[in-house]
Amino acid sequence: MWYESTPFSLREPIQYLLTPLYIRVHARDTVAIIVHPDGVASGDNLGDGITARERIPQAHKIALREIQPGDPVLRYGQIIGHANRAVPAGSWVREEMLVMPAAPPLDALSLATEIPVPERALEGYTFEGYRNPDGSAGTKNILGITTTVQCVAPTVDYAVRRIKTELLPRFPNVDDVVAITHSYGCGVAIEAPGAAIPIRTLKHISLHSNIGTRPLIVSLGCEKLQPARLFAGEMPGGLPIFGEDNVIRLQDYRGFAETVAVILRAAEKRLELLDRRRRESVSAASLVVGLQCGGSDAFSGVTCNPAVGYAADLLVRAGATVLFSEVTEVRDAIHLLTPRAANQDVARALIREMRWYDEYLALGKADRSANTTPGNKRGGLSNIVEKALGSVVKAGSSAIRAVATHGERVTSKGLVFAATPASDFICGTQQLASMNMHVFTTGEGTPYGLALVPVIKISSRTALAEKWPDLIDIDAGRIATGHAGIQDVGWEIFRFILEVASGRKQTWAEHWGLQNALSPFNPGPVT
Amino acid sequence: MWYESTPFSLREPIQYLLTPLYIRVHARDTVAIIVHPDGVASGDNLGDGITARERIPQAHKIALREIQPGDPVLRYGQIIGHANRAVPAGSWVREEMLVMPAAPPLDALSLATEIPVPERALEGYTFEGYRNPDGSAGTKNILGITTTVQCVAPTVDYAVRRIKTELLPRFPNVDDVVAITHSYGCGVAIEAPGAAIPIRTLKHISLHSNIGTRPLIVSLGCEKLQPARLFAGEMPGGLPIFGEDNVIRLQDYRGFAETVAVILRAAEKRLELLDRRRRESVSAASLVVGLQCGGSDAFSGVTCNPAVGYAADLLVRAGATVLFSEVTEVRDAIHLLTPRAANQDVARALIREMRWYDEYLALGKADRSANTTPGNKRGGLSNIVEKALGSVVKAGSSAIRAVATHGERVTSKGLVFAATPASDFICGTQQLASMNMHVFTTGEGTPYGLALVPVIKISSRTALAEKWPDLIDIDAGRIATGHAGIQDVGWEIFRFILEVASGRKQTWAEHWGLQNALSPFNPGPVT
Repeated sequence: MWYESTPFSLREPIQYLLTPLYIRVHARDTVAIIVHPDGVASGDNLGDGITARERIPQAHKIALREIQPGDPVLRYGQIIGHANRAVPAGSWVREEMLVMPAAPPLDALSLATEIPVPERALEGYTFEGYRNPDGSAGTKNILGITTTVQCVAPTVDYAVRRIKTELLPRFPNVDDVVAITHSYGCGVAIEAPGAAIPIRTLKHISLHSNIGTRPLIVSLGCEKLQPARLFAGEMPGGLPIFGEDNVIRLQDYRGFAETVAVILRAAEKRLELLDRRRRESVSAASLVVGLQCGGSDAFSGVTCNPAVGYAADLLVRAGATVLFSEVTEVRDAIHLLTPRAANQDVARALIREMRWYDEYLALGKADRSANTTPGNKRGGLSNIVEKALGSVVKAGSSAIRAVATHGERVTSKGLVFAATPASDFICGTQQLASMNMHVFTTGEGTPYGLALVPVIKISSRTALAEKWPDLIDIDAGRIATGHAGIQDVGWEIFRFILEVASGRKQTWAEHWGLQNALSPFNPGPVT
Repeated sequence: MWYESTPFSLREPIQYLLTPLYIRVHARDTVAIIVHPDGVASGDNLGDGITARERIPQAHKIALREIQPGDPVLRYGQIIGHANRAVPAGSWVREEMLVMPAAPPLDALSLATEIPVPERALEGYTFEGYRNPDGSAGTKNILGITTTVQCVAPTVDYAVRRIKTELLPRFPNVDDVVAITHSYGCGVAIEAPGAAIPIRTLKHISLHSNIGTRPLIVSLGCEKLQPARLFAGEMPGGLPIFGEDNVIRLQDYRGFAETVAVILRAAEKRLELLDRRRRESVSAASLVVGLQCGGSDAFSGVTCNPAVGYAADLLVRAGATVLFSEVTEVRDAIHLLTPRAANQDVARALIREMRWYDEYLALGKADRSANTTPGNKRGGLSNIVEKALGSVVKAGSSAIRAVATHGERVTSKGLVFAATPASDFICGTQQLASMNMHVFTTGEGTPYGLALVPVIKISSRTALAEKWPDLIDIDAGRIATGHAGIQDVGWEIFRFILEVASGRKQTWAEHWGLQNALSPFNPGPVT
C-alpha cells in the first residue's frame, strides 16, 4: 500500500491499511519498503502485481518495477540514487546498487517560493511550568552547577553527590542537582575561529530555563575559558561575575575539603531559592522542543518522523518553538526546505549553514556521506540522501521562521532550523542551548537521555517498542501496521509533551536517570 | 642565585641557597624569576648588583642587565624572545615586551648527534603489582567496562553504580569498577584520516594493564565504532569478539532492566576472576610512567619539572618506561631533543610528530602559541617558548629511545616521546593507552585525577602545597626555597611511585575519588 504524500504535506495523510506488506510514500516512487518483521521471501505476492524475486528483510527496499541502469531510483518522490545495473521488479534494492547523487547545489535553490500558509492557531493549550525572570519557562526545577573547564568536573561531581545526599532531601520542590560538566575549557585554541561554537553553547546551557536561568559556576582559575569569557563579560540580569554566591574559583580556596564545603554552602542558598518556586500554568508557547533522530531506519521517515512532524505542526499552531537540526541530515533535502523559508533571509541563512558544514567536512577530508551508520544500513537506509529525506519529515509542514547557528539561543517562535551536527549527543548538547523539551525518534533504539530536559523517545517500529518497553515512550510503529494514523500519534506526542512538561508524566529516561554527558561541538583545534 | 645547567644536564644540579630572591637557570640568561611569595618592590636589592626598578610579582621575570631593543632575552640559556623596546636592568620583563621567536625549523635539526650515554643501571627496585597475561603489570586491579559509543554510557554508569553497591563488596581484592565511557563512537566521520587516533586510543585503554588487559565491552549495536572495528577484527589472545562474557550489545536484549541484569551477571563472572588475583613483586621495569604538567608557572621549569626529570632518569635506569608528551610544549624545544634521540629514525619520528601538529593547528587557523593559558601568564610564563623550555625538563637527561604517535601503545623501555595534545585531560587520556602510573606537575594547581591509574600531583611552589595540602602529593617548591635539592625530590618521587604502584600509599586524587572523564583526541570531523 502507499500513500501519496511528499514528506512535507502531511496535513491529510492517508492511513495505511492494516499490516501492509510494503509502504510506498509517493506515487512516483520506484521502490517501497517491506513492513513485515520477517521480511518477504522469494515468490511472495505483495499485491498490486508485485512479486518478491528474493528474500528482502524488513525495512529494506523492493523495486516496484524494472529499473534500467542509470535510471533514477525514487523514494519520497525524490531521487535517492541512480541504478548502476539493471534491477528487475521485485528485487532487493541495496546500497551497492545505487550511485548516490551529488548534494543539491547551494547556488541554485528556490528561496521562500512556497511559504506555507499558517494553519489555524490552537488556543488554550498550557502546561505547568516554572516561570523564569527572562520570560522563559522551565519544565523542571533544577539546581545546575556549571563548570568552565573539565579540570573541575570531578570536584563538582563529588560535591553534587554530597548535595544530593545531604541537602536535596530538605528541598522537596527541587527536582535535581546537575553538574553541568564537559570536556571543553582549556587545552584548546580559544582564539581560533571554531572556538566560538563551544563557548556559545556552554554559555546558553549554563543559563538554561530548567535551572532557573541562574547557574552556580565553578571555575578553576587558570583555565582559558574564564567565567568572564564564558559569559562574554557579564552575567545576565547585570549580576556580578564574582562573589561566592555566583562563581566559586577553586584556586581561591584552601584545600579540597574546604572547597567542597564552600560549594555546599553556596548550593544550599540556591536550593532555598529554588525550593520556593512552584509550577504555574503557562502557555504552550513557552515550549521550546528540540527534535532529533538517532539510530534511524527506513521506517523512521514513514512512521515516527511524520508523526513528530505532525506534532511539530501542532506545537507551531500552539505558538511554541520547534527546533529541527542535524545539518548532514538536512543537506540532501535542502532543495525541499529553502522554498519553505518564511523569507529570503531565512532561506539564505539555511544555505549559509549548509555551506559552512560542507567546508568543515571537506577540511577533515570527509563529506555528508560519512553520516550513515552500520545501524542505518542494517535498518534499510541505503545512503545519506534516503536518510535525509526521512529525517526532515520531523520538521512537519510549517514555514521555517528562523535559522540559528551552532550553539546559538533561539528566540523566535514557530519552526526554526537550529544548526547542529547530527551526532546524537552533540546535537542534543547544542539543542540544550535553547530547548526545554526533547523529542527523539529512533529505529534501531538507543537508551539516550539528558540531565537537563526530559527526552521523549519514539520508536519507528513496534518491534522496538515491544523489545524495549521500559525505554520507548511512544510507539509510532503502529502507523506502519495500520493500528494508528499519523495524526493520532502526532496528537499523542503533542499531549504527552504537555504532560511531561508539567511534571505529571515521566519519560523512561527520567525514570532510570539516564543522562548522556554533554558533548560540545568544537571545530577548533586542541592544543 | 643561579645554577648553571641547561634543562638537559640535571645530573649534577647545584642546590639553590636558602630563600634566594631570584633564580637564574643558566649563566647566559639575561632574565631570572623572582622567588619570594610577595615578589620584590622597587628599590629592593637582590644581590649580585641587581636592584629591582619596580614591583615584580613572584615567578615573574627580572632583567638581569640592560637589554637593547632587538636583543635576545635568554632563559634556560635559550632565546625566549627578542625585546621590542629598551629594558633597563632590574625591570619586570613581561609578555608584551617580547617578540616571540619562530619555532625551530624542522628541516635544520641535528639528529641523534648528542646521544646521552646510559647511566649506571639501578638494580633491585620492585613494586607489588598484578601480573597480566601479556607480560604487563597492573598497579591496580580494576573491573573495566568499556564502551564503543557514548549512547551506552548512561546505561553502563547505571550498571556500575549497582555493581559497586551490590557486587563489589563481596570481592575484596578488586580495587574498583570503572565505566570506561567517552564521547566518541558515532556521529563521526569514521573513515576520515583523523579517526584512527581516537579509535587507537580507545582500543588500548580498553585493554589497559590495570583492568587485567581484558575488558567487558558494552556496545549499542548500530554505532559506527563496532567492537570489531575497535579491536581491529580480533580481541587480544584470540578471544572471540562476541559472546555475552565479552561483549554485551544492548540492541540484542529486551528492555533496560533486563539488559542491566545481563551486565551485572557478566560483571560478576569477571569479578570472580579478578578477585583471585594477588599483588606480586615485579621489577620496576614494568612501570610505564606518563609525565604531564598542567597549570604550569615559571617555577615549573626549575622545581617540579627538573625533580620529575631526575625521577625519570632514575626510572629509566631501573629499566622502566617513561613517557613525555604534549607536542605544543615540546615544539619550541625540539632542537634540544632531536640530538638526544637514540638514533636518526627516532629523531625523524620526533620531527614527524611536530610537523603533523603544526599542520593540524594551521588547518584550524591556530599555532602553538595558542597553548598558553591565563594561568600560565599569571604564573610568569610569557609565551609558549618559555613554557616549552620548562616543560621538556620533565624528560630528564636520558636518550630518547622511541616515539609513539597519538594513542599508540608504547612497548619500548626507557624514555619515549608519546605524542599527545597538551590539554591535560586529552594528554592523560592518550597516555592511558600505555601508562600504569601518572605523574602530574602543576604550578597553579588542579584537582586532576584519573579512574584507571593513580595520579601523583607535584607542586612547583610551596605556597600551592600549603594551600592544597589534601590535593598535592609532593611539594617540589622546596627546591626554590633551598629546603631540598632536585635530587632529593627526584628520589622522593621515584620512591613514592613505587609505593603507590604497590598499593601501599594512596594519592590524594585516589583518596577523594577524583576521576576526570576520558577525552579522546579526535582531529577528524563530526557528522
